[in-house]
Amino acid sequence: MTHVEEMLRTYPADLGDIDRAALVRCIEECFDCAQTCTACADACLSEAGVAGLVKCVRTCLDCADICDATGRVLSRRTGYDASLTRAMLQACLTACGSCASECERHAQMHEHCRVCAEVCRSCERACQELISALG
Amino acid sequence: MTHVEEMLRTYPADLGDIDRAALVRCIEECFDCAQTCTACADACLSEAGVAGLVKCVRTCLDCADICDATGRVLSRRTGYDASLTRAMLQACLTACGSCASECERHAQMHEHCRVCAEVCRSCERACQELISALG
Amino acid sequence: MTHVEEMLRTYPADLGDIDRAALVRCIEECFDCAQTCTACADACLSEAGVAGLVKCVRTCLDCADICDATGRVLSRRTGYDASLTRAMLQACLTACGSCASECERHAQMHEHCRVCAEVCRSCERACQELISALG
Amino acid sequence: MTHVEEMLRTYPADLGDIDRAALVRCIEECFDCAQTCTACADACLSEAGVAGLVKCVRTCLDCADICDATGRVLSRRTGYDASLTRAMLQACLTACGSCASECERHAQMHEHCRVCAEVCRSCERACQELISALG
Repeated sequence: MTHVEEMLRTYPADLGDIDRAALVRCIEECFDCAQTCTACADACLSEAGVAGLVKCVRTCLDCADICDATGRVLSRRTGYDASLTRAMLQACLTACGSCASECERHAQMHEHCRVCAEVCRSCERACQELISALG
Repeated sequence: MTHVEEMLRTYPADLGDIDRAALVRCIEECFDCAQTCTACADACLSEAGVAGLVKCVRTCLDCADICDATGRVLSRRTGYDASLTRAMLQACLTACGSCASECERHAQMHEHCRVCAEVCRSCERACQELISALG
Repeated sequence: MTHVEEMLRTYPADLGDIDRAALVRCIEECFDCAQTCTACADACLSEAGVAGLVKCVRTCLDCADICDATGRVLSRRTGYDASLTRAMLQACLTACGSCASECERHAQMHEHCRVCAEVCRSCERACQELISALG
Repeated sequence: MTHVEEMLRTYPADLGDIDRAALVRCIEECFDCAQTCTACADACLSEAGVAGLVKCVRTCLDCADICDATGRVLSRRTGYDASLTRAMLQACLTACGSCASECERHAQMHEHCRVCAEVCRSCERACQELISALG
C-alpha cells in the first residue's frame, strides 16, 4: 500500500552508498507512526478517563509531528546531508521511545495505546538501524 | 504495513454512521500520496531538465502538505465535524487532481512522475468516494 | 517579527495580479493561528476540566494542521493555481470558524480559549478577504 | 503579530523552571523560519538558474519541516520532556545551520537567499540559547 520503494527505484540520480532496505523501512515506519500517534491521541481524548491520559496525548502529538518531519527529510535524496539526517533520526528515536514508554503504561487498559506502543517501538528500531547503517 | 484499520477498531467511542472501509482507504491514500509527492518533488529536483519541472515540484509540494493535513483530520474522530471534513476532502481532491494532471504531462519522460500521477489519481478517487459516502 | 512581506518583495518572478497586502496578511495569520491553536490544544489538556474540553482540543488540532498547510500553499507563487488556492482557503476559513465557535464557548472560563477564538476569527476574516480579492 | 507570549501567559499550569523569554523567542523564530524557508525554496524554483539551486531548495524544504515540528513541540508544555526537547532543538539548529550555509553561498546573487540565510542564523541562535537555558 505504500510506494516508498518504487519512488526510490525511479529516483533519477545516484542514491549513493546507502542501505536501501533500511531506508525504505524507516520511511514507511515514520509515516505509519505519524498516523498511528495522531489516531491514538484522538482515541485518548474519547476515553472516559482522559484526565489520566493528558501526558499520553501530548507525547503522541509530538511523536506524530517528529515522525512526519523525519519521513519527509528521509524521502528527499537531492543534496544529501548526513549530519542532518543523523540529528533528525536521533530526535525521532527519542520521540518514539518516549511515546512507546508512555503508551505502554496504558496498554493493558487501552487497546489503542497497546497498538501505538508497538508501532512506536518498531519505528524506534527502524531509526536505530538506519543510524547504524549510515555508519 | 499501516495500522489505520486497527486504530479505528480500537477507537473507544462510537464511530457514528460512517463507511469505515472508505474512511480507512482514504486515510491510507492520503499518507501514501503525501510521501509519494514529497519524493516526486525531490526526484524532479535531481533531473537534468529541472527547469522544465518547476511547476511540477510546486504542485507536488502543495499536494503533499494538503494530503498530510487531510490524513490527520480524517484520523481524528472525536467531536466529528462533517462540514470541515467535506471542505478538506474537497481541497484534497483538487490538489490531487492538479498534481496528477501536471505529473501526467511528464509521465512518459520520468518514471517517478508516472508513479506519482497514479498515486494522486488513486487518492483523488478515495476522497471523492468518501465525500459521496458522507452523503 | 515575520519576513512574509520581505520574501514576497524578493520573489524573482512576476507575482501576477494579486492583492499583495491581503496575501501577506493571510500568510501571517495562518502561521500565527497554527501556533495559537497548537498552544490552546495543549493548554486545554492541562485544565482540571479537560473532560469538558475534548472537542475543543480536537478542533484546535485540526485548525492548526489546516492553517499550517494553507500558509505553506500561499507562500508558494511558482506555477500559481487559483482553483487550488480557493479550495484551500475555503477549508481554512471553515476550520477557523469551527474552532472559533468552539473556543468562544469556553472563553469566559479559559483565557487561552478567548485568545484562540480571537486569533481564529482574525484568520477566518483574512481568508475571506483573500478569497474576495482573488475575484 | 504573534500570540506566543500571550498563550504562554494564559497556560493554566505551572510552566516550571524555564527561561520564558528564550522560549518565546525560539517558538517565534521556528515559525518565522518555516515560512521563510518555504518561500525561499519556491523563489529558487522561479530563478532562471534553478539548476544551480537544487541543493538550496532541498535544504530549505528540510529546514521548513524541522522548524515547523520544533515550533509545535516547543508550543506544548503539558508533560514536558527535557530530553526530547533537547534532541529536537539539536536537530533544528543543525537544519538551520545547514540551510544558512547553503543560502549564504547564493546571497549575493539572490536577495531571497540573503534574507533566508539571516532568518536561519537567527533561528539557529535562538535554538542554541534555549538549549543553554535548559541547562
